[in-house]
Amino acid sequence: MEVAETIAQVRSLVGAARGRGKKVGLVPTMGALHTGHVSLIEAAVNDCDFVVVSIFVNPTQFGPGEDLEAYPKPFEADLEICAKAGVDLVFAPAPEQMYPAQNLAWVTVERLTEPLCGRGRPIHFRGVTTVCTKLFNIVGPDVAYFGQKDAQQATVVKRMVADLNMPLEIVVCPTVREPSGLAVSSRNQYLSDRQREEAANIHKSLEECRRLIEAGETQAARIIAKVRAKLQEVPSMEIEYVDVVDAETLESLEKVSGRVLVAVAVRIGAARLIDNIVLETGG
Amino acid sequence: MEVAETIAQVRSLVGAARGRGKKVGLVPTMGALHTGHVSLIEAAVNDCDFVVVSIFVNPTQFGPGEDLEAYPKPFEADLEICAKAGVDLVFAPAPEQMYPAQNLAWVTVERLTEPLCGRGRPIHFRGVTTVCTKLFNIVGPDVAYFGQKDAQQATVVKRMVADLNMPLEIVVCPTVREPSGLAVSSRNQYLSDRQREEAANIHKSLEECRRLIEAGETQAARIIAKVRAKLQEVPSMEIEYVDVVDAETLESLEKVSGRVLVAVAVRIGAARLIDNIVLETGG
Repeated sequence: MEVAETIAQVRSLVGAARGRGKKVGLVPTMGALHTGHVSLIEAAVNDCDFVVVSIFVNPTQFGPGEDLEAYPKPFEADLEICAKAGVDLVFAPAPEQMYPAQNLAWVTVERLTEPLCGRGRPIHFRGVTTVCTKLFNIVGPDVAYFGQKDAQQATVVKRMVADLNMPLEIVVCPTVREPSGLAVSSRNQYLSDRQREEAANIHKSLEECRRLIEAGETQAARIIAKVRAKLQEVPSMEIEYVDVVDAETLESLEKVSGRVLVAVAVRIGAARLIDNIVLETGG
Repeated sequence: MEVAETIAQVRSLVGAARGRGKKVGLVPTMGALHTGHVSLIEAAVNDCDFVVVSIFVNPTQFGPGEDLEAYPKPFEADLEICAKAGVDLVFAPAPEQMYPAQNLAWVTVERLTEPLCGRGRPIHFRGVTTVCTKLFNIVGPDVAYFGQKDAQQATVVKRMVADLNMPLEIVVCPTVREPSGLAVSSRNQYLSDRQREEAANIHKSLEECRRLIEAGETQAARIIAKVRAKLQEVPSMEIEYVDVVDAETLESLEKVSGRVLVAVAVRIGAARLIDNIVLETGG
Protein backbone atom coordinates (compact mmCIF):
# COMPACT_ATOMS: atom_id res chain seq x y z
CA MET A 1 0.00 0.00 0.00
CA GLU A 2 1.26 3.46 -0.91
CA VAL A 3 0.59 6.62 1.10
CA ALA A 4 0.56 9.91 -0.83
CA GLU A 5 0.45 13.39 0.66
CA THR A 6 0.46 15.38 -2.56
CA ILE A 7 -1.95 15.72 -5.46
CA ALA A 8 0.92 15.16 -7.91
CA GLN A 9 1.78 11.79 -6.30
CA VAL A 10 -1.86 10.67 -6.43
CA ARG A 11 -2.21 11.66 -10.09
CA SER A 12 0.98 9.83 -10.98
CA LEU A 13 0.09 6.62 -9.08
CA VAL A 14 -3.54 6.50 -10.25
CA GLY A 15 -2.45 7.39 -13.80
CA ALA A 16 -0.05 4.45 -13.80
CA ALA A 17 -2.77 2.09 -12.52
CA ARG A 18 -5.20 3.35 -15.16
CA GLY A 19 -2.50 2.84 -17.78
CA ARG A 20 -2.41 -0.81 -16.74
CA GLY A 21 -6.17 -0.97 -17.40
CA LYS A 22 -7.23 -0.93 -13.74
CA LYS A 23 -10.72 0.12 -12.64
CA VAL A 24 -10.28 2.76 -9.92
CA GLY A 25 -12.46 3.00 -6.79
CA LEU A 26 -12.41 5.87 -4.28
CA VAL A 27 -13.61 5.83 -0.67
CA PRO A 28 -13.55 9.45 0.56
CA THR A 29 -13.24 9.60 4.38
CA MET A 30 -12.32 11.96 7.19
CA GLY A 31 -10.31 9.15 8.84
CA ALA A 32 -11.11 7.71 12.30
CA LEU A 33 -12.00 4.63 10.29
CA HIS A 34 -14.55 2.18 11.66
CA THR A 35 -16.45 -0.87 10.42
CA GLY A 36 -18.71 1.40 8.34
CA HIS A 37 -15.71 2.65 6.36
CA VAL A 38 -14.38 -0.91 6.14
CA SER A 39 -17.63 -2.01 4.51
CA LEU A 40 -17.17 0.73 1.87
CA ILE A 41 -13.55 -0.33 1.30
CA GLU A 42 -14.65 -3.97 0.96
CA ALA A 43 -17.24 -2.99 -1.64
CA ALA A 44 -14.54 -1.05 -3.52
CA VAL A 45 -12.02 -3.91 -3.34
CA ASN A 46 -14.72 -6.22 -4.60
CA ASP A 47 -15.71 -4.05 -7.60
CA CYS A 48 -12.42 -2.36 -8.55
CA ASP A 49 -8.78 -3.20 -9.31
CA PHE A 50 -7.18 -0.19 -7.64
CA VAL A 51 -8.68 1.23 -4.45
CA VAL A 52 -7.91 4.70 -3.12
CA VAL A 53 -8.97 5.85 0.36
CA SER A 54 -8.70 9.58 1.04
CA ILE A 55 -8.26 10.68 4.65
CA PHE A 56 -8.90 14.38 5.03
CA VAL A 57 -10.77 16.23 7.77
CA ASN A 58 -12.24 18.84 5.46
CA PRO A 59 -12.41 22.21 7.23
CA THR A 60 -14.92 23.74 4.77
CA GLN A 61 -17.71 21.37 5.84
CA PHE A 62 -17.52 22.37 9.53
CA GLY A 63 -19.41 25.43 10.70
CA PRO A 64 -18.31 27.74 13.51
CA GLY A 65 -18.64 26.02 16.89
CA GLU A 66 -18.62 22.52 15.36
CA ASP A 67 -16.09 19.80 16.18
CA LEU A 68 -13.37 20.49 13.59
CA GLU A 69 -10.60 20.68 16.22
CA ALA A 70 -11.92 17.79 18.32
CA TYR A 71 -12.39 15.46 15.36
CA PRO A 72 -10.37 12.26 16.04
CA LYS A 73 -7.22 11.68 13.94
CA PRO A 74 -5.84 8.18 14.71
CA PHE A 75 -3.71 8.20 11.55
CA GLU A 76 -1.51 5.13 12.24
CA ALA A 77 -4.53 2.99 13.16
CA ASP A 78 -6.31 4.20 10.00
CA LEU A 79 -3.35 3.15 7.83
CA GLU A 80 -3.37 -0.29 9.44
CA ILE A 81 -7.08 -0.70 8.75
CA CYS A 82 -6.56 0.33 5.12
CA ALA A 83 -3.60 -2.02 4.62
CA LYS A 84 -5.54 -4.93 6.12
CA ALA A 85 -8.59 -4.20 3.96
CA GLY A 86 -6.59 -4.33 0.73
CA VAL A 87 -6.36 -0.62 -0.09
CA ASP A 88 -3.81 0.25 -2.81
CA LEU A 89 -3.33 3.95 -2.09
CA VAL A 90 -4.11 6.22 0.85
CA PHE A 91 -4.30 9.93 0.00
CA ALA A 92 -3.72 11.92 3.19
CA PRO A 93 -3.19 15.56 2.24
CA ALA A 94 -2.46 18.44 4.60
CA PRO A 95 -5.04 21.26 4.54
CA GLU A 96 -2.58 23.46 2.57
CA GLN A 97 -2.44 20.80 -0.14
CA MET A 98 -6.20 20.85 -0.60
CA TYR A 99 -6.72 24.58 -0.02
CA PRO A 100 -3.46 26.34 -0.98
CA ALA A 101 -5.21 29.69 -1.40
CA GLN A 102 -8.45 31.15 -0.16
CA ASN A 103 -11.06 28.98 -1.85
CA LEU A 104 -13.30 30.99 -4.18
CA ALA A 105 -14.86 28.22 -6.30
CA TRP A 106 -17.68 26.20 -4.76
CA VAL A 107 -20.05 23.48 -5.86
CA THR A 108 -23.52 23.82 -4.42
CA VAL A 109 -26.68 21.76 -4.75
CA GLU A 110 -29.94 23.63 -4.30
CA ARG A 111 -33.07 22.34 -2.54
CA LEU A 112 -31.70 18.94 -1.45
CA THR A 113 -29.31 20.67 0.95
CA GLU A 114 -31.95 22.83 2.64
CA PRO A 115 -33.99 20.41 4.82
CA LEU A 116 -32.80 17.93 7.49
CA CYS A 117 -29.12 18.53 8.39
CA GLY A 118 -29.01 21.57 6.09
CA ARG A 119 -31.15 23.57 8.54
CA GLY A 120 -28.72 23.29 11.44
CA ARG A 121 -25.56 23.14 9.30
CA PRO A 122 -26.03 25.79 6.60
CA ILE A 123 -22.52 25.59 5.04
CA HIS A 124 -21.96 21.87 5.60
CA PHE A 125 -23.09 20.45 2.26
CA ARG A 126 -21.35 23.16 0.24
CA GLY A 127 -18.12 21.99 1.91
CA VAL A 128 -18.94 18.33 1.21
CA THR A 129 -19.81 18.81 -2.47
CA THR A 130 -16.79 21.06 -3.02
CA VAL A 131 -14.30 18.67 -1.41
CA CYS A 132 -15.86 15.67 -3.18
CA THR A 133 -15.50 17.51 -6.52
CA LYS A 134 -11.85 18.23 -5.70
CA LEU A 135 -11.20 14.60 -4.72
CA PHE A 136 -12.99 13.28 -7.82
CA ASN A 137 -10.89 15.62 -9.99
CA ILE A 138 -7.65 14.64 -8.22
CA VAL A 139 -8.20 10.87 -8.16
CA GLY A 140 -10.37 10.42 -11.26
CA PRO A 141 -12.17 7.31 -9.94
CA ASP A 142 -14.58 5.13 -11.93
CA VAL A 143 -16.65 4.59 -8.78
CA ALA A 144 -16.89 6.36 -5.41
CA TYR A 145 -18.45 4.82 -2.30
CA PHE A 146 -20.65 6.52 0.32
CA GLY A 147 -22.60 5.23 3.32
CA GLN A 148 -26.38 5.21 3.66
CA LYS A 149 -25.97 6.47 7.26
CA ASP A 150 -25.35 9.91 5.72
CA ALA A 151 -28.48 9.60 3.56
CA GLN A 152 -28.77 13.29 2.68
CA GLN A 153 -25.08 13.47 1.76
CA ALA A 154 -25.47 10.47 -0.55
CA THR A 155 -28.53 12.02 -2.23
CA VAL A 156 -26.79 15.37 -2.65
CA VAL A 157 -23.58 13.84 -4.07
CA LYS A 158 -25.54 11.67 -6.50
CA ARG A 159 -27.45 14.70 -7.76
CA MET A 160 -24.23 16.70 -8.11
CA VAL A 161 -22.65 13.92 -10.18
CA ALA A 162 -25.73 13.67 -12.41
CA ASP A 163 -26.27 17.42 -12.90
CA LEU A 164 -22.59 18.18 -13.56
CA ASN A 165 -22.00 15.06 -15.75
CA MET A 166 -19.14 13.92 -13.53
CA PRO A 167 -17.69 10.80 -15.18
CA LEU A 168 -18.06 8.36 -12.29
CA GLU A 169 -20.60 6.14 -10.59
CA ILE A 170 -21.74 6.68 -6.98
CA VAL A 171 -22.40 3.54 -4.94
CA VAL A 172 -24.25 3.84 -1.63
CA CYS A 173 -23.62 1.03 0.89
CA PRO A 174 -25.90 0.00 3.77
CA THR A 175 -25.48 1.47 7.25
CA VAL A 176 -23.29 -0.66 9.50
CA ARG A 177 -24.53 -0.99 13.10
CA GLU A 178 -23.14 -2.01 16.46
CA PRO A 179 -24.85 -5.05 18.07
CA SER A 180 -27.07 -2.58 19.97
CA GLY A 181 -28.33 -1.16 16.68
CA LEU A 182 -26.38 2.11 17.03
CA ALA A 183 -25.11 3.21 13.61
CA VAL A 184 -21.30 3.20 13.66
CA SER A 185 -19.82 6.69 13.38
CA SER A 186 -16.49 8.34 14.13
CA ARG A 187 -18.43 10.64 16.45
CA ASN A 188 -19.50 7.70 18.65
CA GLN A 189 -16.04 8.15 20.20
CA TYR A 190 -17.37 11.27 21.93
CA LEU A 191 -19.85 9.10 23.90
CA SER A 192 -19.33 7.71 27.42
CA ASP A 193 -20.27 4.05 27.91
CA ARG A 194 -23.58 5.12 29.39
CA GLN A 195 -24.32 7.56 26.55
CA ARG A 196 -23.45 4.85 24.03
CA GLU A 197 -26.07 2.57 25.59
CA GLU A 198 -28.59 5.41 25.54
CA ALA A 199 -27.76 6.18 21.88
CA ALA A 200 -29.03 2.72 20.89
CA ASN A 201 -32.46 4.25 21.40
CA ILE A 202 -32.08 6.13 18.08
CA HIS A 203 -32.22 2.90 16.12
CA LYS A 204 -35.01 1.54 18.33
CA SER A 205 -37.11 4.61 17.56
CA LEU A 206 -36.57 4.07 13.82
CA GLU A 207 -37.47 0.38 14.10
CA GLU A 208 -40.66 1.33 15.93
CA CYS A 209 -41.38 3.74 13.12
CA ARG A 210 -40.87 0.94 10.58
CA ARG A 211 -43.38 -1.28 12.43
CA LEU A 212 -45.85 1.59 12.61
CA ILE A 213 -45.68 2.25 8.85
CA GLU A 214 -45.80 -1.46 8.04
CA ALA A 215 -48.92 -1.67 10.21
CA GLY A 216 -50.54 0.89 7.92
CA GLU A 217 -49.89 4.28 9.49
CA THR A 218 -49.62 6.91 6.72
CA GLN A 219 -49.79 10.24 8.60
CA ALA A 220 -46.30 11.71 8.89
CA ALA A 221 -47.26 13.83 11.92
CA ARG A 222 -48.25 10.68 13.85
CA ILE A 223 -45.10 8.84 12.79
CA ILE A 224 -42.90 11.77 13.83
CA ALA A 225 -44.69 12.06 17.19
CA LYS A 226 -44.10 8.36 17.85
CA VAL A 227 -40.38 8.58 17.00
CA ARG A 228 -40.00 11.70 19.14
CA ALA A 229 -41.76 10.05 22.08
CA LYS A 230 -39.48 7.02 21.85
CA LEU A 231 -36.35 9.21 21.61
CA GLN A 232 -37.47 11.22 24.62
CA GLU A 233 -37.39 8.09 26.77
CA VAL A 234 -33.71 9.06 27.11
CA PRO A 235 -33.90 12.45 28.84
CA SER A 236 -30.30 13.42 27.99
CA MET A 237 -31.04 13.12 24.27
CA GLU A 238 -31.69 16.46 22.60
CA ILE A 239 -33.63 16.12 19.35
CA GLU A 240 -32.44 18.30 16.46
CA TYR A 241 -34.95 16.95 13.97
CA VAL A 242 -37.16 13.99 13.11
CA ASP A 243 -38.59 14.12 9.61
CA VAL A 244 -40.44 11.95 7.12
CA VAL A 245 -39.41 12.93 3.60
CA ASP A 246 -39.52 11.72 0.01
CA ALA A 247 -36.33 9.67 -0.39
CA GLU A 248 -35.44 11.35 -3.70
CA THR A 249 -36.48 14.99 -3.31
CA LEU A 250 -36.01 15.10 0.52
CA GLU A 251 -39.21 17.16 0.73
CA SER A 252 -41.32 16.67 3.87
CA LEU A 253 -44.36 14.47 3.40
CA GLU A 254 -47.72 14.81 5.08
CA LYS A 255 -48.70 11.29 4.06
CA VAL A 256 -46.16 8.57 3.39
CA SER A 257 -46.08 7.44 -0.23
CA GLY A 258 -43.50 5.73 -2.44
CA ARG A 259 -39.90 5.56 -1.25
CA VAL A 260 -39.78 7.29 2.11
CA LEU A 261 -36.79 8.39 4.22
CA VAL A 262 -37.28 8.76 7.96
CA ALA A 263 -34.30 10.72 9.28
CA VAL A 264 -33.23 11.68 12.77
CA ALA A 265 -30.55 13.96 14.25
CA VAL A 266 -29.93 14.16 17.99
CA ARG A 267 -27.32 15.38 20.42
CA ILE A 268 -26.06 13.31 23.30
CA GLY A 269 -23.37 15.09 25.29
CA ALA A 270 -20.70 16.29 22.85
CA ALA A 271 -21.90 14.07 20.01
CA ARG A 272 -24.29 15.01 17.23
CA LEU A 273 -25.60 11.72 15.83
CA ILE A 274 -27.71 11.02 12.76
CA ASP A 275 -29.51 7.91 11.54
CA ASN A 276 -32.27 6.99 9.11
CA ILE A 277 -34.31 4.26 7.49
CA VAL A 278 -35.67 4.02 3.98
CA LEU A 279 -39.02 2.31 3.44
CA GLU A 280 -40.85 1.35 0.26
CA THR A 281 -44.47 2.23 0.96
CA GLY A 282 -47.61 1.96 -1.15
CA GLY A 283 -49.34 4.93 -2.71
CA MET B 1 -15.10 15.53 -38.90
CA GLU B 2 -17.74 13.90 -36.71
CA VAL B 3 -20.80 15.68 -35.31
CA ALA B 4 -22.22 14.33 -32.04
CA GLU B 5 -25.48 15.34 -30.43
CA THR B 6 -25.32 13.12 -27.36
CA ILE B 7 -23.01 12.93 -24.37
CA ALA B 8 -22.63 9.18 -24.89
CA GLN B 9 -21.36 9.69 -28.46
CA VAL B 10 -18.84 12.31 -27.32
CA ARG B 11 -17.55 10.09 -24.52
CA SER B 12 -17.17 7.19 -26.90
CA LEU B 13 -15.38 9.18 -29.63
CA VAL B 14 -13.07 11.06 -27.24
CA GLY B 15 -12.39 7.84 -25.30
CA ALA B 16 -11.31 6.13 -28.51
CA ALA B 17 -9.00 9.06 -29.41
CA ARG B 18 -7.51 9.04 -25.92
CA GLY B 19 -7.01 5.28 -26.24
CA ARG B 20 -4.89 6.01 -29.32
CA GLY B 21 -2.76 8.34 -27.15
CA LYS B 22 -4.18 11.58 -28.53
CA LYS B 23 -3.97 14.88 -26.63
CA VAL B 24 -7.49 16.34 -26.53
CA GLY B 25 -8.30 20.05 -26.92
CA LEU B 26 -11.71 21.65 -26.33
CA VAL B 27 -12.97 24.97 -27.68
CA PRO B 28 -16.30 25.68 -25.92
CA THR B 29 -18.48 28.03 -28.00
CA MET B 30 -22.06 29.20 -28.37
CA GLY B 31 -21.73 28.90 -32.17
CA ALA B 32 -22.08 31.85 -34.56
CA LEU B 33 -18.40 31.23 -35.13
CA HIS B 34 -16.15 34.10 -36.23
CA THR B 35 -12.43 34.72 -36.67
CA GLY B 36 -12.02 34.92 -32.87
CA HIS B 37 -13.27 31.34 -32.51
CA VAL B 38 -11.14 30.29 -35.48
CA SER B 39 -8.04 31.60 -33.70
CA LEU B 40 -8.93 29.43 -30.68
CA ILE B 41 -9.47 26.41 -32.93
CA GLU B 42 -6.13 27.06 -34.65
CA ALA B 43 -4.38 27.19 -31.27
CA ALA B 44 -6.04 23.88 -30.34
CA VAL B 45 -5.16 22.22 -33.67
CA ASN B 46 -1.59 23.40 -33.17
CA ASP B 47 -1.24 22.05 -29.59
CA CYS B 48 -3.46 18.96 -29.62
CA ASP B 49 -4.07 15.78 -31.64
CA PHE B 50 -7.86 15.67 -31.31
CA VAL B 51 -9.86 18.90 -31.29
CA VAL B 52 -13.45 19.14 -30.03
CA VAL B 53 -15.60 22.24 -30.58
CA SER B 54 -18.79 22.43 -28.55
CA ILE B 55 -21.64 24.51 -29.96
CA PHE B 56 -24.27 25.17 -27.33
CA VAL B 57 -26.21 28.35 -26.59
CA ASN B 58 -26.28 27.83 -22.84
CA PRO B 59 -29.59 29.08 -21.39
CA THR B 60 -28.34 29.24 -17.78
CA GLN B 61 -25.91 32.06 -18.54
CA PHE B 62 -28.60 34.37 -19.93
CA GLY B 63 -30.59 36.53 -17.54
CA PRO B 64 -34.24 37.52 -18.04
CA GLY B 65 -34.54 40.09 -20.84
CA GLU B 66 -31.20 39.12 -22.38
CA ASP B 67 -30.73 37.88 -25.96
CA LEU B 68 -31.14 34.10 -25.49
CA GLU B 69 -33.86 33.84 -28.15
CA ALA B 70 -32.21 36.30 -30.55
CA TYR B 71 -28.77 34.68 -30.31
CA PRO B 72 -27.68 33.74 -33.87
CA LYS B 73 -27.58 30.01 -34.75
CA PRO B 74 -26.01 29.60 -38.22
CA PHE B 75 -25.35 25.90 -37.63
CA GLU B 76 -24.42 24.80 -41.18
CA ALA B 77 -21.98 27.69 -41.59
CA ASP B 78 -20.47 26.85 -38.18
CA LEU B 79 -19.90 23.24 -39.25
CA GLU B 80 -18.19 24.41 -42.42
CA ILE B 81 -15.86 26.68 -40.43
CA CYS B 82 -15.01 23.82 -38.07
CA ALA B 83 -14.34 21.36 -40.89
CA LYS B 84 -12.09 23.86 -42.68
CA ALA B 85 -10.18 24.63 -39.48
CA GLY B 86 -9.34 20.96 -38.87
CA VAL B 87 -11.76 20.16 -36.02
CA ASP B 88 -12.15 16.42 -35.30
CA LEU B 89 -15.46 16.48 -33.43
CA VAL B 90 -18.28 18.99 -33.05
CA PHE B 91 -20.49 18.48 -30.00
CA ALA B 92 -23.83 20.16 -30.64
CA PRO B 93 -26.26 19.04 -27.94
CA ALA B 94 -29.91 20.04 -27.62
CA PRO B 95 -30.81 21.85 -24.36
CA GLU B 96 -32.51 18.65 -23.08
CA GLN B 97 -29.24 16.77 -23.51
CA MET B 98 -27.35 19.24 -21.32
CA TYR B 99 -30.18 19.93 -18.84
CA PRO B 100 -32.44 16.84 -18.80
CA ALA B 101 -33.91 17.76 -15.41
CA GLN B 102 -34.19 20.97 -13.44
CA ASN B 103 -30.56 21.80 -12.70
CA LEU B 104 -29.85 21.83 -8.94
CA ALA B 105 -26.02 21.61 -8.88
CA TRP B 106 -24.08 24.78 -9.66
CA VAL B 107 -20.47 25.82 -9.71
CA THR B 108 -19.89 29.35 -8.47
CA VAL B 109 -16.79 31.51 -8.08
CA GLU B 110 -16.94 34.17 -5.39
CA ARG B 111 -15.51 37.69 -5.62
CA LEU B 112 -14.16 37.49 -9.18
CA THR B 113 -17.73 37.32 -10.51
CA GLU B 114 -19.00 40.36 -8.61
CA PRO B 115 -17.41 43.38 -10.37
CA LEU B 116 -17.49 44.37 -14.08
CA CYS B 117 -20.02 42.24 -16.03
CA GLY B 118 -21.11 40.55 -12.78
CA ARG B 119 -22.90 43.72 -11.66
CA GLY B 120 -25.25 43.90 -14.63
CA ARG B 121 -25.46 40.13 -15.20
CA PRO B 122 -25.81 38.59 -11.73
CA ILE B 123 -26.45 34.97 -12.83
CA HIS B 124 -24.23 35.01 -15.93
CA PHE B 125 -20.99 33.62 -14.52
CA ARG B 126 -22.74 30.91 -12.51
CA GLY B 127 -24.17 29.70 -15.82
CA VAL B 128 -20.76 29.90 -17.51
CA THR B 129 -18.85 28.04 -14.78
CA THR B 130 -21.56 25.41 -14.51
CA VAL B 131 -21.73 24.70 -18.25
CA CYS B 132 -17.93 24.72 -18.54
CA THR B 133 -17.75 22.17 -15.70
CA LYS B 134 -20.32 20.03 -17.50
CA LEU B 135 -18.45 20.28 -20.83
CA PHE B 136 -15.11 19.53 -19.16
CA ASN B 137 -16.66 16.46 -17.48
CA ILE B 138 -18.28 15.29 -20.73
CA VAL B 139 -15.28 15.81 -23.04
CA GLY B 140 -12.41 15.35 -20.58
CA PRO B 141 -9.99 17.62 -22.47
CA ASP B 142 -6.30 18.09 -21.66
CA VAL B 143 -6.58 21.76 -22.65
CA ALA B 144 -9.50 24.17 -23.13
CA TYR B 145 -9.24 27.45 -25.03
CA PHE B 146 -10.84 30.79 -24.15
CA GLY B 147 -10.54 34.29 -25.63
CA GLN B 148 -9.03 37.32 -23.90
CA LYS B 149 -11.96 39.41 -25.19
CA ASP B 150 -13.98 37.86 -22.36
CA ALA B 151 -11.27 38.70 -19.81
CA GLN B 152 -13.42 38.25 -16.71
CA GLN B 153 -14.72 34.90 -17.97
CA ALA B 154 -11.14 33.69 -18.57
CA THR B 155 -10.08 34.78 -15.07
CA VAL B 156 -13.12 33.14 -13.47
CA VAL B 157 -12.69 29.85 -15.38
CA LYS B 158 -8.97 29.70 -14.55
CA ARG B 159 -9.71 30.19 -10.87
CA MET B 160 -12.45 27.53 -10.96
CA VAL B 161 -10.05 25.03 -12.54
CA ALA B 162 -7.36 25.80 -9.95
CA ASP B 163 -9.64 25.77 -6.88
CA LEU B 164 -11.49 22.60 -7.89
CA ASN B 165 -8.37 20.76 -9.14
CA MET B 166 -9.93 20.18 -12.54
CA PRO B 167 -7.44 18.06 -14.51
CA LEU B 168 -6.95 20.34 -17.51
CA GLU B 169 -5.05 23.41 -18.64
CA ILE B 170 -6.76 26.67 -19.62
CA VAL B 171 -5.20 28.61 -22.49
CA VAL B 172 -6.29 32.20 -23.10
CA CYS B 173 -5.77 33.50 -26.66
CA PRO B 174 -5.48 37.15 -27.73
CA THR B 175 -8.52 39.16 -28.81
CA VAL B 176 -9.07 39.12 -32.56
CA ARG B 177 -10.12 42.46 -34.06
CA GLU B 178 -11.69 43.72 -37.25
CA PRO B 179 -9.52 46.12 -39.30
CA SER B 180 -11.30 49.00 -37.53
CA GLY B 181 -10.09 47.69 -34.16
CA LEU B 182 -13.56 46.43 -33.13
CA ALA B 183 -13.20 43.14 -31.20
CA VAL B 184 -14.91 40.37 -33.16
CA SER B 185 -18.00 39.01 -31.41
CA SER B 186 -21.07 37.04 -32.39
CA ARG B 187 -23.07 39.99 -31.08
CA ASN B 188 -21.56 42.34 -33.72
CA GLN B 189 -24.23 40.81 -35.99
CA TYR B 190 -26.81 42.88 -34.12
CA LEU B 191 -25.14 46.10 -35.39
CA SER B 192 -26.14 48.12 -38.46
CA ASP B 193 -23.27 49.22 -40.73
CA ARG B 194 -23.32 52.64 -39.12
CA GLN B 195 -23.34 51.21 -35.58
CA ARG B 196 -20.46 48.93 -36.49
CA GLU B 197 -18.42 51.98 -37.54
CA GLU B 198 -19.33 53.73 -34.31
CA ALA B 199 -18.42 50.65 -32.26
CA ALA B 200 -14.80 50.97 -33.43
CA ASN B 201 -14.65 53.83 -30.92
CA ILE B 202 -14.51 51.25 -28.07
CA HIS B 203 -11.07 50.08 -29.15
CA LYS B 204 -9.96 53.65 -29.83
CA SER B 205 -10.89 54.63 -26.27
CA LEU B 206 -8.83 51.73 -24.90
CA GLU B 207 -5.86 52.65 -27.11
CA GLU B 208 -6.08 56.22 -25.83
CA CYS B 209 -6.10 54.79 -22.32
CA ARG B 210 -2.97 52.77 -23.12
CA ARG B 211 -1.15 55.92 -24.33
CA LEU B 212 -2.25 57.79 -21.22
CA ILE B 213 -0.91 55.12 -18.87
CA GLU B 214 2.28 54.73 -20.89
CA ALA B 215 2.73 58.50 -20.61
CA GLY B 216 2.73 58.10 -16.83
CA GLU B 217 -0.87 58.60 -15.70
CA THR B 218 -1.51 56.48 -12.59
CA GLN B 219 -4.84 57.78 -11.24
CA ALA B 220 -7.64 55.37 -12.16
CA ALA B 221 -10.29 58.09 -11.88
CA ARG B 222 -8.53 60.18 -14.52
CA ILE B 223 -8.02 57.20 -16.80
CA ILE B 224 -11.68 56.21 -16.50
CA ALA B 225 -12.82 59.80 -17.17
CA LYS B 226 -10.71 59.89 -20.33
CA VAL B 227 -12.08 56.58 -21.62
CA ARG B 228 -15.64 57.67 -20.86
CA ALA B 229 -15.14 61.01 -22.63
CA LYS B 230 -13.81 59.22 -25.71
CA LEU B 231 -16.70 56.71 -25.68
CA GLN B 232 -19.22 59.54 -25.37
CA GLU B 233 -18.04 60.99 -28.67
CA VAL B 234 -20.56 58.49 -30.06
CA PRO B 235 -23.87 59.73 -28.63
CA SER B 236 -25.74 56.48 -29.33
CA MET B 237 -23.28 54.51 -27.16
CA GLU B 238 -24.60 53.80 -23.69
CA ILE B 239 -21.82 53.03 -21.20
CA GLU B 240 -22.49 50.15 -18.78
CA TYR B 241 -19.09 50.35 -17.10
CA VAL B 242 -15.51 51.46 -17.54
CA ASP B 243 -13.17 50.15 -14.85
CA VAL B 244 -9.48 49.87 -14.05
CA VAL B 245 -8.89 46.71 -12.01
CA ASP B 246 -6.12 44.39 -10.87
CA ALA B 247 -5.83 41.80 -13.67
CA GLU B 248 -5.77 38.88 -11.22
CA THR B 249 -8.19 39.83 -8.42
CA LEU B 250 -10.41 42.07 -10.64
CA GLU B 251 -10.61 44.53 -7.74
CA SER B 252 -10.94 48.20 -8.66
CA LEU B 253 -7.72 50.18 -8.36
CA GLU B 254 -7.34 53.80 -7.33
CA LYS B 255 -3.79 53.90 -8.65
CA VAL B 256 -2.56 51.63 -11.44
CA SER B 257 0.09 49.16 -10.31
CA GLY B 258 1.32 45.78 -11.59
CA ARG B 259 -0.78 43.94 -14.16
CA VAL B 260 -3.83 46.09 -14.85
CA LEU B 261 -7.02 45.30 -16.76
CA VAL B 262 -9.00 48.17 -18.26
CA ALA B 263 -12.44 46.82 -19.14
CA VAL B 264 -15.40 48.38 -20.90
CA ALA B 265 -19.01 47.35 -21.52
CA VAL B 266 -21.33 49.42 -23.69
CA ARG B 267 -24.63 49.11 -25.49
CA ILE B 268 -25.14 50.18 -29.08
CA GLY B 269 -28.67 49.52 -30.28
CA ALA B 270 -29.50 45.87 -29.52
CA ALA B 271 -25.88 44.87 -28.90
CA ARG B 272 -24.09 44.75 -25.57
CA LEU B 273 -20.36 44.82 -26.39
CA ILE B 274 -17.34 44.33 -24.15
CA ASP B 275 -13.65 44.90 -24.71
CA ASN B 276 -10.49 45.30 -22.62
CA ILE B 277 -6.75 45.78 -22.58
CA VAL B 278 -4.17 44.41 -20.16
CA LEU B 279 -1.15 46.54 -19.34
CA GLU B 280 1.97 45.78 -17.34
CA THR B 281 2.57 48.90 -15.29
CA GLY B 282 5.24 49.78 -12.74
CA GLY B 283 4.56 49.99 -9.00
